[in-house]
Amino acid sequence: MKITEIKSHEFTATTRRMSSKYGYSAYPIEMLQSEPREISVQIQELVTDTGTSGYWMGPPLTPWINQLAIGEDPINREWLWHQSRGNSDLDMLLWDFAGRYFETPVHKLLGGYRDKIKCYASSFPNMGSPEVFADHAEECVKKGYLAYKIHAYMYWDPFKMEPAPRSPAFPKMDVEVCKAVRERVGDDIVLMLDQACIYNYEEALYVGKAIEELNFFWFESPMPENIIEPYIRLVENVGVPVCGPEGVENLPYSRTSWILRKACDMGRSEFKYNGITGCMKTVALYESFGMRCTIHGGNWGNMPIYGATNHNTIEYYERGLFAPGHDEAYEEPPPYLKEIADPLDGQGNVLIPQKPGLGFEIDWDYIENNRV
Amino acid sequence: MKITEIKSHEFTATTRRMSSKYGYSAYPIEMLQSEPREISVQIQELVTDTGTSGYWMGPPLTPWINQLAIGEDPINREWLWHQSRGNSDLDMLLWDFAGRYFETPVHKLLGGYRDKIKCYASSFPNMGSPEVFADHAEECVKKGYLAYKIHAYMYWDPFKMEPAPRSPAFPKMDVEVCKAVRERVGDDIVLMLDQACIYNYEEALYVGKAIEELNFFWFESPMPENIIEPYIRLVENVGVPVCGPEGVENLPYSRTSWILRKACDMGRSEFKYNGITGCMKTVALYESFGMRCTIHGGNWGNMPIYGATNHNTIEYYERGLFAPGHDEAYEEPPPYLKEIADPLDGQGNVLIPQKPGLGFEIDWDYIENNRV
Repeated sequence: MKITEIKSHEFTATTRRMSSKYGYSAYPIEMLQSEPREISVQIQELVTDTGTSGYWMGPPLTPWINQLAIGEDPINREWLWHQSRGNSDLDMLLWDFAGRYFETPVHKLLGGYRDKIKCYASSFPNMGSPEVFADHAEECVKKGYLAYKIHAYMYWDPFKMEPAPRSPAFPKMDVEVCKAVRERVGDDIVLMLDQACIYNYEEALYVGKAIEELNFFWFESPMPENIIEPYIRLVENVGVPVCGPEGVENLPYSRTSWILRKACDMGRSEFKYNGITGCMKTVALYESFGMRCTIHGGNWGNMPIYGATNHNTIEYYERGLFAPGHDEAYEEPPPYLKEIADPLDGQGNVLIPQKPGLGFEIDWDYIENNRV
Repeated sequence: MKITEIKSHEFTATTRRMSSKYGYSAYPIEMLQSEPREISVQIQELVTDTGTSGYWMGPPLTPWINQLAIGEDPINREWLWHQSRGNSDLDMLLWDFAGRYFETPVHKLLGGYRDKIKCYASSFPNMGSPEVFADHAEECVKKGYLAYKIHAYMYWDPFKMEPAPRSPAFPKMDVEVCKAVRERVGDDIVLMLDQACIYNYEEALYVGKAIEELNFFWFESPMPENIIEPYIRLVENVGVPVCGPEGVENLPYSRTSWILRKACDMGRSEFKYNGITGCMKTVALYESFGMRCTIHGGNWGNMPIYGATNHNTIEYYERGLFAPGHDEAYEEPPPYLKEIADPLDGQGNVLIPQKPGLGFEIDWDYIENNRV
């Protein structure tokens, strides 16, 4: 069995998402105001001599990864993972291929654990006043979400209501948001705070102590993750579980240092950095330490990880960023896919995809009609 | 897809292996002297509603594991692993089923890394004088083995040449064996020593320092593994890499403590305690720490682990216990299997099985003719 080619399919689609001046791309106000615009989308196809292909949504592989893969056995994911230094794009193609080849969903190849997982809603950051956040949290709880994660203000000035640099942040206003939400949803709803690495140590300590009082479930990525020392101090000095790192590459090896140095209380990972192969190694590491792991977001790429892991290690599923009046967008697939990755079951769970491979079905008619 | 039954096949076969008075079963002298005797052998069959079964060689599952499995999806290995508290017998049946169902060898399901692995010969313990060991090591090197692991004297008095209690051991005589072997094979051959947990701390320290001088590759399981503290001291005080634990159950969690407490320089594991699922989690843990892992023995159960892991984590394959005049026995399968798990390639490697599942083919005619 051999990989014969990696083919790129490029086509156009529309999006409403804009980039921000300061580099953080999810400003709901700008986004909701912006007109849909046309962007170029790419799907890669791992072609094999078996007649079955694997697919993944992303740019073409770099030339050396491409060259490494051609002629190799597509089933040898472990070998290719090590040789490619954990390349995520190749790993995702290989997993989708394997599932399609064996006609089974990837979470079953990994050894299935569950077919659904408890779900939480994450807020967009910078949605408005603390009351706007509280309104939205209440709305999500009414819709059946079992927990709510706040992204308060980031890359944003909550007084001027306009983009701002990452630092200095606005920790007092962030705490006001957390207070307003806790007050509104009551004590029984699980709440988390994710500030996407914007605070310095003192700001993180202040916010951490405040949300410890508010009985938050975790405090995610409060500070930049390229410096581990302030995380160690934060874990020592706040009682709310500190969760991270998210954006540190080189899984699972980078996570080992964070665990050993007690720089987090809960781990975090996702398929994006070193693929499903790297992420599953990382999950095994967290499990070995009896440490909870949280996964960044949904996406077809993460779904098998949720489906093949136990509930004591990964408890909640993060279903994208929501904002008032905008949440229906998550119930529709992009125009080139036939379904969404994470349908709800009406009881606060999302369902793990059960179709072969990563589970998505590509609308090839759409692609043919919109090829670049 | 459901597990409908777990069926037991019981039949007779012959063996020459005897148990010893003191509980360690591998005495070559007794064994070579003993007449073949008839024993009862059992193969379990995991029956599913797919028409495909999984098989494993071992006694019937305990009633509660059996009851747990019936009606469940056999693909949900991860779920069943957690619910069964890592039961190995069930896990092996599930892996063999999965491979047969998908018509692929288990190491490929796990994400293949290699199809062969460097091989070492292990000596039987208590083979005779140090010269007998040296003769045998030389013979193994001539046959193409790339390394040689010594089991010197254990549960055995090397002066009286008869069974003896585990402790006190005979460390000076063990060192004489190591010296004789090193002298005979020269400095370029990789040598290891495994003393199967017989020493106290002082004995282990004495032997460890001696084989450090003799440039041994690892010192395996020198002391009982139910006490971790002397291992920590040994790692601090000898330069030869200390390798273990082997027989501590509850993978991968038990290994975490050994790593964290610096009780070993190299890890050890195998399928027997918590199945391939547990062992692969453990290997991910060792890999995350950049620590080498060694696997106890061959067997169809371990072969997929060798085939799906990288050479920096697991470098050598252990091909059973050898003794002069007795090594051909390893080239023949037991009468109820059609092949051996680990054929040699003539260049010091063993080949990973490539047939579906764990790779063994059962000789059903033999079983039918010898059913109990």
